Amino acid sequence: MSDLQRDLRIAVLGVGMMGAFHADALATRTKGARVVVVNDFAAEKAAEVAARVGARVVEDPIAAINAPEVDAVLIATPGKAHAEQVQACLAAGKPVLCEKPLTTDEESSYALVQAEAAVGRPLVQLGFMRRFDAEYAALKDLITSGGLGNPLLVHCTHRNPAVPDFFNSEFMVRDSVVHEVDVARFLLDEEITSVQVLRGVATSSAPEGTWDPMIVVFETESGRIVTDEISVRTGVAYEVRTEVVGETGSAMIGLDQSLVRTSTDGRWGGQITPGFVERFGQAYDTELQRWVAAAKQGTIDGPGVWDGYAAVAVCEAGVKAVQTGEKVAVALKAKP
Amino acid sequence: MSDLQRDLRIAVLGVGMMGAFHADALATRTKGARVVVVNDFAAEKAAEVAARVGARVVEDPIAAINAPEVDAVLIATPGKAHAEQVQACLAAGKPVLCEKPLTTDEESSYALVQAEAAVGRPLVQLGFMRRFDAEYAALKDLITSGGLGNPLLVHCTHRNPAVPDFFNSEFMVRDSVVHEVDVARFLLDEEITSVQVLRGVATSSAPEGTWDPMIVVFETESGRIVTDEISVRTGVAYEVRTEVVGETGSAMIGLDQSLVRTSTDGRWGGQITPGFVERFGQAYDTELQRWVAAAKQGTIDGPGVWDGYAAVAVCEAGVKAVQTGEKVAVALKAKP
Amino acid sequence: MSDLQRDLRIAVLGVGMMGAFHADALATRTKGARVVVVNDFAAEKAAEVAARVGARVVEDPIAAINAPEVDAVLIATPGKAHAEQVQACLAAGKPVLCEKPLTTDEESSYALVQAEAAVGRPLVQLGFMRRFDAEYAALKDLITSGGLGNPLLVHCTHRNPAVPDFFNSEFMVRDSVVHEVDVARFLLDEEITSVQVLRGVATSSAPEGTWDPMIVVFETESGRIVTDEISVRTGVAYEVRTEVVGETGSAMIGLDQSLVRTSTDGRWGGQITPGFVERFGQAYDTELQRWVAAAKQGTIDGPGVWDGYAAVAVCEAGVKAVQTGEKVAVALKAKP
Amino acid sequence: MSDLQRDLRIAVLGVGMMGAFHADALATRTKGARVVVVNDFAAEKAAEVAARVGARVVEDPIAAINAPEVDAVLIATPGKAHAEQVQACLAAGKPVLCEKPLTTDEESSYALVQAEAAVGRPLVQLGFMRRFDAEYAALKDLITSGGLGNPLLVHCTHRNPAVPDFFNSEFMVRDSVVHEVDVARFLLDEEITSVQVLRGVATSSAPEGTWDPMIVVFETESGRIVTDEISVRTGVAYEVRTEVVGETGSAMIGLDQSLVRTSTDGRWGGQITPGFVERFGQAYDTELQRWVAAAKQGTIDGPGVWDGYAAVAVCEAGVKAVQTGEKVAVALKAKP
Repeated sequence: MSDLQRDLRIAVLGVGMMGAFHADALATRTKGARVVVVNDFAAEKAAEVAARVGARVVEDPIAAINAPEVDAVLIATPGKAHAEQVQACLAAGKPVLCEKPLTTDEESSYALVQAEAAVGRPLVQLGFMRRFDAEYAALKDLITSGGLGNPLLVHCTHRNPAVPDFFNSEFMVRDSVVHEVDVARFLLDEEITSVQVLRGVATSSAPEGTWDPMIVVFETESGRIVTDEISVRTGVAYEVRTEVVGETGSAMIGLDQSLVRTSTDGRWGGQITPGFVERFGQAYDTELQRWVAAAKQGTIDGPGVWDGYAAVAVCEAGVKAVQTGEKVAVALKAKP
Repeated sequence: MSDLQRDLRIAVLGVGMMGAFHADALATRTKGARVVVVNDFAAEKAAEVAARVGARVVEDPIAAINAPEVDAVLIATPGKAHAEQVQACLAAGKPVLCEKPLTTDEESSYALVQAEAAVGRPLVQLGFMRRFDAEYAALKDLITSGGLGNPLLVHCTHRNPAVPDFFNSEFMVRDSVVHEVDVARFLLDEEITSVQVLRGVATSSAPEGTWDPMIVVFETESGRIVTDEISVRTGVAYEVRTEVVGETGSAMIGLDQSLVRTSTDGRWGGQITPGFVERFGQAYDTELQRWVAAAKQGTIDGPGVWDGYAAVAVCEAGVKAVQTGEKVAVALKAKP
Repeated sequence: MSDLQRDLRIAVLGVGMMGAFHADALATRTKGARVVVVNDFAAEKAAEVAARVGARVVEDPIAAINAPEVDAVLIATPGKAHAEQVQACLAAGKPVLCEKPLTTDEESSYALVQAEAAVGRPLVQLGFMRRFDAEYAALKDLITSGGLGNPLLVHCTHRNPAVPDFFNSEFMVRDSVVHEVDVARFLLDEEITSVQVLRGVATSSAPEGTWDPMIVVFETESGRIVTDEISVRTGVAYEVRTEVVGETGSAMIGLDQSLVRTSTDGRWGGQITPGFVERFGQAYDTELQRWVAAAKQGTIDGPGVWDGYAAVAVCEAGVKAVQTGEKVAVALKAKP
Repeated sequence: MSDLQRDLRIAVLGVGMMGAFHADALATRTKGARVVVVNDFAAEKAAEVAARVGARVVEDPIAAINAPEVDAVLIATPGKAHAEQVQACLAAGKPVLCEKPLTTDEESSYALVQAEAAVGRPLVQLGFMRRFDAEYAALKDLITSGGLGNPLLVHCTHRNPAVPDFFNSEFMVRDSVVHEVDVARFLLDEEITSVQVLRGVATSSAPEGTWDPMIVVFETESGRIVTDEISVRTGVAYEVRTEVVGETGSAMIGLDQSLVRTSTDGRWGGQITPGFVERFGQAYDTELQRWVAAAKQGTIDGPGVWDGYAAVAVCEAGVKAVQTGEKVAVALKAKP
């Protein structure tokens, strides 16, 4: 495929919350894109979304990928289905935007790194959408431009107001900390080499055996330290902050997220974004628009399969770090 | 035209800074829209933009409006051309998005109000894009929801870093204050009945005879007061703020406009948006996307011809108020 | 009296809320000062405060001023008593700190200006304590140092959460706006030449016939404009802000007044200072400490009798401006 | 000594930067206090300060403590002199305000704990002045009042713009981190049980072998985690922040420390306090005023000898943690 003039025809695999959100965005806000195929193991859900976006349902995900009218694929199925589906996209030579995680274990993730290398061009983009958030992008630009001098420390904060009980400490690492893994790699432009998890007093709303909050500490190749507070049952709102401390200054994003500043009833302040859509809606839209433009050229424009693999590897180590309380080394395989 | 399935085919009239900005947005970021005709009195500019967006040039603006492949029209020509062009759109029954001002005098603006009324459905949308800015929309919602109680006062601030010398006090009213005219009418949902201009000490960078800054004071039908500081040569950045004071609280937008908060060299803070594109880019995009969706249904979705007429009438009074320093009454004609 | 080595012995006249506050501050927090005499028309109140601060009660205010053990006088009696009491202090050659207003009419205020001139050295300090507030002082320094270029506009905001019903519009001018009169004169270092009051929609909690809020507009000798929003029944908290717009930048104080920034229950923000003590407690302490040090040298260190007279004159004009809605000129008599 | 009516007569030991600062504050801003004796190993400095505050010089520190006209003692000598001087104060039964550290090793600190216990009443107050800072006090109140629910995490940040080269990593722990040791103990009201130091990439302005910045991690008796970023060569300003994360909300102090918010030259923001005096001046004054009042009653009002001992013990462990990179346990002796 080269320099497609017409709309990119997309198959959306998995139309749960995230996939349906993407399908709607492609259908209503993404210039140059069209959803032509919808797939989900839940037939009713697939039919409903397909009707809404003007697509047809294909029941088998691999058949959906290989459907002749499909130019590119968006994967929002459960993580355990990703390995096979991404392989199929690579086999078909179709650009794919795959939600995190790339796969559910390090081996299968690395296999995809190798498979893409065999294809010879980037086809797999990972859904680390924070890279497309205007604030993270501005922070990255500030670092790159030297505005903070050499970056020395990164402090991350990720707080959810509430989560279901299955969000135990290991899940917190795989589902939430994974974002900060990519943020750290993106901002510092180097790999993470170890993970330690500081397990303190848990909030009373956490299930027995779940450490919440935790402080996760990363070290990077050059020896930089990244701290990440992960709290998922704060009862407050969706708070995501990042501060970078460099040799000549520090910079922070995400502190004040309200559209309107009010003074009422003895207090000034504003609303914290209630959820990820309010906080990162623009980032998702930008991610899709840029992916569509790149996919029309047969390539990607964003984090790739290696970023997906590295995140999986760090999170694997993170899970061990949760369980042991010790510092766990991360050893990445060779980058093709 | 009813419920158009295909892309809306648009003629863009006037591709100076604003029109070219819109043409590019329609071509690259607006789902469901296509620029098919470009018109500008500067042939070279028209050709350049047309080539970029994949449209053809039509030299005569009325011919561009009436071209059979054109579904809707975006007017970004100089204000003095608007009356005739909007009339032509109404005659052709084609939805139009017209940049401010609606026309350059009150009579011709009211004539358009009557002409649209004769057509029998809303076809003319005015480019008061602040209504589509997320902050203004949230402020309006807060007022409407009763979050501030009955609104009593509105304080507006509009500061430009620099303008050309032809930006004299009258021009400041017609080009800048006009935005606050619409903001006040939008937030308070009533008409402005008088204008007073407080003319103080001018900045040394203002040309002889130009009051800059000025404080403009509006009164509304119910007697509310709106203050507006207009400064266009501050040397600082593009600062647009609005505060509403209600019976039970106050709310402010536009104070802190930076993506990143830095601490460097003894100071904390952030960048002020340098210009209107950085500040209101999202508002323009949202305006276009919603107008396109409405135009496909043969109607508009935003401020209409009456809002354009009212703004012209208030600005006429404002210009007299600049010249006299007295309070000048605004008397609107009957709303059809 | 010259260069007093021992504690300054002070008579406090009037120990209502403000006077008792000062007496306690002198007794517990002001180095080098001692309250030796307390006077109040309410005998019980006088006795209570005198006992607390270790002073004796003197029933007649003039006798209190003239008591031989009294070095200096703090006047916090009702405004109508000030003229005679300040005259007595001048006659006795004793430094005095007089709470605003200097007197209740322009003539008697000017008489004090002349009386002090006859004495030949500054003895009368006015209680415009905002000049001693760290924020106002820093703002003044910023202006003086040229950090904003030539100041062009001043915007003031004064909001009280609630007041008794006798706080009508005239009282709002005399009791609240008087602070902004001094702030404007202090920051701009020139006199006010006219006052206009914009009377809009009143809050429903204002008594019949009271305009609340009002916008007061001052012009100064050099033609600068000062706006002042005065709202005294906001139900919110004690909010006092000032913004100065200069040729090269603007500066604001008083926006965020909280010690702790919290994120709870979906919102970030902080407490607004509930009342004037929380907001200006430091200013009162600093005012007293510096006045005591100056009084030991037989002089004052702060706004003087001319500042008191000018404020009375502007407020007289302000009251007429409230009643007429017109711009009212202020013509000060000659400065000795 | 019981309920002293006259001024408290104080000996100030050590009038380097800190001691001279205190001597001046006692002489000019602290009600009820008088400096009567000044001692310093540098005779000239002692003479200069003594002359300024109206005291006499006593050359021997122990003689200064035991001088009959001395009611109480302020110790601002180098840490290695503290043990003997505090013992002398205890022996003389005179209240003492001792700058940190209590002593330079754990054993001698604990000896003072025992010595005071033998006296039978609190006489030794430690100069952890942050407890008297209005922001820290408000944060403590917020925690105590349950406004954040059970506190789970504390995040501290301490940044200096520049320090001399002898500020190596061990010194950073003993001189700077010691403040956060007390802050954590004060806010959480429990002891620290272990220290770990994360040593990352050092700023290029740090001498060879000095880790700067460092992340220090404390665990407390109940298992809570406290993180502390300590950076002493940022080139920015004096930045001290604390955030507490509780079960129902979080709270932060120290983020925005400017008196005036400016908009100039494309940026909004304010000045960060340049040094500790600008940031904590009020805290020092309040500390002194409350200590003087307590000392007049023969006791203290603030952190005591146990707090001094605990801080020394934690910092000893911290120094080991710097050297090893391992988690080091803190085992406090019995509290009398």
